[in-house]
Amino acid sequence: MGTIQRFVAIPLQSSFLAPPIKPLHSSLHLSPSHSNSNSSSNSNLKFRSKASPSPTVSVTMAGIKVHGVPMSTATMRVLAALYEKDLDFELIPVDMRAGAHKQEPFLSLNPFGQIPALQDGDLSLFESRAITEYIAEEYSEKGEKLECPGCKKVKATTKVWLQVEGQQFDPVASKLAFERVFKGMFGKTTDPAAVEELEGKLVKVLDIYEARLSKSEFLACDCFTLADLHHLPALHYLMGTDSKKLFESRSKVHEWVQKITSRPAWTKVVALLKQ
Amino acid sequence: MGTIQRFVAIPLQSSFLAPPIKPLHSSLHLSPSHSNSNSSSNSNLKFRSKASPSPTVSVTMAGIKVHGVPMSTATMRVLAALYEKDLDFELIPVDMRAGAHKQEPFLSLNPFGQIPALQDGDLSLFESRAITEYIAEEYSEKGEKLECPGCKKVKATTKVWLQVEGQQFDPVASKLAFERVFKGMFGKTTDPAAVEELEGKLVKVLDIYEARLSKSEFLACDCFTLADLHHLPALHYLMGTDSKKLFESRSKVHEWVQKITSRPAWTKVVALLKQ
Repeated sequence: MGTIQRFVAIPLQSSFLAPPIKPLHSSLHLSPSHSNSNSSSNSNLKFRSKASPSPTVSVTMAGIKVHGVPMSTATMRVLAALYEKDLDFELIPVDMRAGAHKQEPFLSLNPFGQIPALQDGDLSLFESRAITEYIAEEYSEKGEKLECPGCKKVKATTKVWLQVEGQQFDPVASKLAFERVFKGMFGKTTDPAAVEELEGKLVKVLDIYEARLSKSEFLACDCFTLADLHHLPALHYLMGTDSKKLFESRSKVHEWVQKITSRPAWTKVVALLKQ
Repeated sequence: MGTIQRFVAIPLQSSFLAPPIKPLHSSLHLSPSHSNSNSSSNSNLKFRSKASPSPTVSVTMAGIKVHGVPMSTATMRVLAALYEKDLDFELIPVDMRAGAHKQEPFLSLNPFGQIPALQDGDLSLFESRAITEYIAEEYSEKGEKLECPGCKKVKATTKVWLQVEGQQFDPVASKLAFERVFKGMFGKTTDPAAVEELEGKLVKVLDIYEARLSKSEFLACDCFTLADLHHLPALHYLMGTDSKKLFESRSKVHEWVQKITSRPAWTKVVALLKQ
């Protein structure tokens, strides 16, 4: 983990246990002294690259380390939470083409061999949704609130919509993004029948979201919470495809997508993809 | 929901968005005055049956209502948490054969049309894992602890293993239970190739569990937590199939399965299936 590694693209796992990984544009092989003016104005975000193994120029050593790659949906989820909380962190790329995520020392961070993993001092965590919940609670006083400061009803309802994302939205949206976006990246052909089936499932979810968002501004309540944030990575990819019509044709869903994707923190995550 | 309903069997959804439902034995058409001596000694658990619509004999009106059927894995998860917390509750069967879960008034409880849903006073929740988390927090002082009273590290680690169950174990274990158990119930044929593929994925998960359980008594720490409890329904079904060898051949996993499936609360859930 401490070694200098290269951003690379790897083929998707068919199991979807690992998040889809978008190949990095070659310009993402940044020199360590690279300053990401769009995204790191408030962070000691530091890229390491095999191409440029000279000492880094970050001003302070960040206590939080994210092992991942920016185009991985699960990594993006964690980065969004860190930016929302205005926390300094170090993004340590994992050389997935070389299988670094399936070997030590990465397996000591996540025995399932999937990115991202997070280190915060001597605490080591994996599973992106567990990481964002940790960040929201541990750094509750920093940056943006990611939990609604409401009654027990609001807290419990937030738990429900966190599970809805993980159990209802993501299993469909991730597979659709795989068909629509990632297959093409890896020289595979999109299966129109699969797209049709997945879109059929997605509209059922989005119809429920439309009704929900007619009652509250965000999914859990009238505050932006992790239940919304967790959707951002899959939304990002799907809104770049024809599937965006499914979102845009539902006025409340469309409004919600526009609202959450235009948050400054998310803009910073997306900026990382454009390097 | 308030109407008297019949326990019935329904075909599985192929999408796995809904939990597998085991057909109820006809003896589960209990009379309202039925006393479930195995399972309800500490609860005002009350069954309603179309066959016996006479007044019930429960001593107090339970404030907690679970809408579901006992053989549904998601319902079992919630029942296990309620029994662990020694809480009174009313189990209100949902007539799934008649599609009651896809119609009002059930859709007002869960717009996704899946069991279970929980009502606690004027609070209405769905998604079994959100419900158990609510129960564990709201009733933290009652019954068994379902969270480890540890430091932030333990709390964060519990979040990780809660996600591991939902994202790594369950997607494989539920599909395997479908192949091994539920297909047969619905007159379908188990696909040996699917079983082989799923077992191949499951052993990878169980190898990681074996290593984890060599370091701590339970998944999150040395206390039984929701991260363990959430596994019980799928474990229950798989341990009745040849797939049990995958668990029994791993000593720590085997020990863990024996420990968590023999908990008094879980024994009460299983007793409901044997009616």
